[in-house]
Amino acid sequence: MQATDTKTKLTRRPYMSETARFAAGKDTPRDFLERCLAAIDEWEPKILAFVAQNREGARAAADRSTERWRNGKPLSAIDGMPVGIKDIIETIDMPTGQGSPLFAGAQTGRDAAAVAALRAAGAVVVGKTVTTEFAATFPGATRNPWDPKRTPGGSSSGSAAAVGAGLLPGALGTQVIGSTIRPASYCGCYGFKPTFGGINRGGSYDYLSQSSTGTIAATLAEAWQLAYEMVFRVGGDPGFIGLTGPTSAPAAKKPRNLAFLQTGGWAAASAGAKKAMEGALERIGAAGVMVLTRQSDKRVAAVEDAITVARESSLAINAWESRWPLNTYRDRDASKLSPHALARLKQAEAMTLDDYRRLLEQRAKVRALYAELAEDVSATVSLSAPAAAPLGLESTGDPGCTVHTSFLGIPSLSLPLLHDEGLPLGLQIAGFEHRDADAFAVAAFVEKAVA
Amino acid sequence: MQATDTKTKLTRRPYMSETARFAAGKDTPRDFLERCLAAIDEWEPKILAFVAQNREGARAAADRSTERWRNGKPLSAIDGMPVGIKDIIETIDMPTGQGSPLFAGAQTGRDAAAVAALRAAGAVVVGKTVTTEFAATFPGATRNPWDPKRTPGGSSSGSAAAVGAGLLPGALGTQVIGSTIRPASYCGCYGFKPTFGGINRGGSYDYLSQSSTGTIAATLAEAWQLAYEMVFRVGGDPGFIGLTGPTSAPAAKKPRNLAFLQTGGWAAASAGAKKAMEGALERIGAAGVMVLTRQSDKRVAAVEDAITVARESSLAINAWESRWPLNTYRDRDASKLSPHALARLKQAEAMTLDDYRRLLEQRAKVRALYAELAEDVSATVSLSAPAAAPLGLESTGDPGCTVHTSFLGIPSLSLPLLHDEGLPLGLQIAGFEHRDADAFAVAAFVEKAVA
Repeated sequence: MQATDTKTKLTRRPYMSETARFAAGKDTPRDFLERCLAAIDEWEPKILAFVAQNREGARAAADRSTERWRNGKPLSAIDGMPVGIKDIIETIDMPTGQGSPLFAGAQTGRDAAAVAALRAAGAVVVGKTVTTEFAATFPGATRNPWDPKRTPGGSSSGSAAAVGAGLLPGALGTQVIGSTIRPASYCGCYGFKPTFGGINRGGSYDYLSQSSTGTIAATLAEAWQLAYEMVFRVGGDPGFIGLTGPTSAPAAKKPRNLAFLQTGGWAAASAGAKKAMEGALERIGAAGVMVLTRQSDKRVAAVEDAITVARESSLAINAWESRWPLNTYRDRDASKLSPHALARLKQAEAMTLDDYRRLLEQRAKVRALYAELAEDVSATVSLSAPAAAPLGLESTGDPGCTVHTSFLGIPSLSLPLLHDEGLPLGLQIAGFEHRDADAFAVAAFVEKAVA
Repeated sequence: MQATDTKTKLTRRPYMSETARFAAGKDTPRDFLERCLAAIDEWEPKILAFVAQNREGARAAADRSTERWRNGKPLSAIDGMPVGIKDIIETIDMPTGQGSPLFAGAQTGRDAAAVAALRAAGAVVVGKTVTTEFAATFPGATRNPWDPKRTPGGSSSGSAAAVGAGLLPGALGTQVIGSTIRPASYCGCYGFKPTFGGINRGGSYDYLSQSSTGTIAATLAEAWQLAYEMVFRVGGDPGFIGLTGPTSAPAAKKPRNLAFLQTGGWAAASAGAKKAMEGALERIGAAGVMVLTRQSDKRVAAVEDAITVARESSLAINAWESRWPLNTYRDRDASKLSPHALARLKQAEAMTLDDYRRLLEQRAKVRALYAELAEDVSATVSLSAPAAAPLGLESTGDPGCTVHTSFLGIPSLSLPLLHDEGLPLGLQIAGFEHRDADAFAVAAFVEKAVA
């Protein structure tokens, strides 16, 4: 039984907890990298997380990092950390294929902002990880490391599978609907989608107005640190203040109150997922935190009602904003677009600019309503997905639990604290715009309370 | 005398006024294109406005347009209009070189959003026009058509030279400091920089937080129409409402009041430019419009004072936002970056993220102050440049008259109504955020009053 077999073997692979040993000469970033590469050798044939690897470049970078730790001069807390880059994001040493045959092997001649910043912080770029086509819905080849008959989720499929399988401590994802949080949930790792604009998207082919570059990591601390080190060096999107917060992961802080959001995913949630969520809420309550619900609090109910539009409106917003470049790709070679992409383009071409403007207006109103919730609660909690990763590879799963955070532009985290069918399931913590650090502090508290 | 010789020959080449003759079978878009190509043959060796041309593609597109006009089914008011595309903007049929040897000949495999929209409206893409390096300050080869010993301005050098010389009726520009308005001023054509976010920048390598794609055109009506047809099809930047206004250029409307802004450029203005501006203000006054000044109105004085920071702060904002990708270009091959780019990178690397955040905060405050001016005036008027195009090609000229509009994110227009040293000089009309159409209506009124 492959599934059972793999389940027993899977552990995430943290990095930052090892660095004290580098400083003490007991281990080296190069040796750490070699262990990652050995794990990749073992797992990659089964899960297909990568589209490209640059082992020579990674080894050279790890050797330089080894020198720096030896000399007591690491560039950052993530110096030497082996990372994977979602293949929607440019890298100078590997092609950027965007999950599309139209761009297979495309060399763009530069690193994206996030990648340049990671390298400047000393991180070791190991490879490009599989993305769905244009970071949207048409799946790539990756399989879930917990059960290769199941989807890893998407669109950050390869990043989540690689980190969930313990091949790498960290990787970059992006999300416009659920593409970081959901695969993190399915693959059993941490996922972080920042406030919109939080991490510079320069050189990432995810230009949509809800899209954010995020991190997928072996630990909560590393999800923060990766993001922090990038933003410290290259900021957020142009014109945005970018992620704000401390130089290392915020310490656990007991929240004032939390709100449980059912979200659009609750109705579709499995019995196991619901039970897991209810158990988590009990433990949070037992830790002395009041959890408001739609039953107990009118403002929570109003937010729940308002975000019911998030899924349909987000799909329409994304469709309009994808009209270009999908139209130019269709004109170039329609046979190289998936049916999903062609359907999205068709939806976009049935829309008018005024339709789009109305959606923006609606989104702004729902955002304002959600923001008021900050008066009552420190963050909201919910499932990261309605269930464990579904069987089959033809879909990357249901975004009903995650789309509201992209629609709202707010920070969200997936913590691998729950289980369903004996497989990983994420607990989602979502905060408030520009208060990503507060969401991390809540997440650290919840992690202790629930684990 | 080359300069005198060329001056006597230059006329802009409008297109939309010809289309009635296409419908009547008296002329065709193909014949119009051939006249443009003949003019390019004559002028291009002297002014070097183009980095690439696709004459075969243009002729085929013009033939299709000819058919449509003949059948009474043009795709838009600009169907068949020959246009130039600034070489910072992607085209599927020609390389996108960004004015840098690092990207000479680079094929990106798609049209930018603006280009795709122009083609969808029937416009005929003739060629890629010279940009300064990365649309910043290091000049390309283009010369001013009024005097080839003078700069055409930049960074939209080739677009302005081609339209000013009458080679094309329209072209795309971009501006982050003065890159559309100033070359339009120097080359004697119309320039339009929309409200920030007004025209979709997808596929344009101008991602900065003050940067806008704009139009350069033979007439005010065409400057509007080009922008309108693009936005109608592909919207503004993702998340922005985009340019709003009527389906054809707004009619002249007498403004309530105007404000004369000296801007940072006035102190450096030539005697001829000052005299020309004062004459224009007199004629505006004679047309019955009150023109407020810093002497007559405290709010105008407050705005003048506030925008004194625009130049230095904009340069710093741009530097920070250019840190990436310039750092990756330097790492790739520093010898292929201009001293200008290396200096900008050095400035950026001396800045911190907090420095940048303070600049964003300052910019937001100045924007709020300027917005209050809308209570008193319909628009502001000023010089588009401190003087006619300066002699020499080593600099694209002084941005002191234009940088405030980019800093403020407001719509601005350059009208070729003034002269200095017998050469063209633009009159600048700047409006208020999202009220681009109002700025056009004022511009149309001012054009009649001043001409």
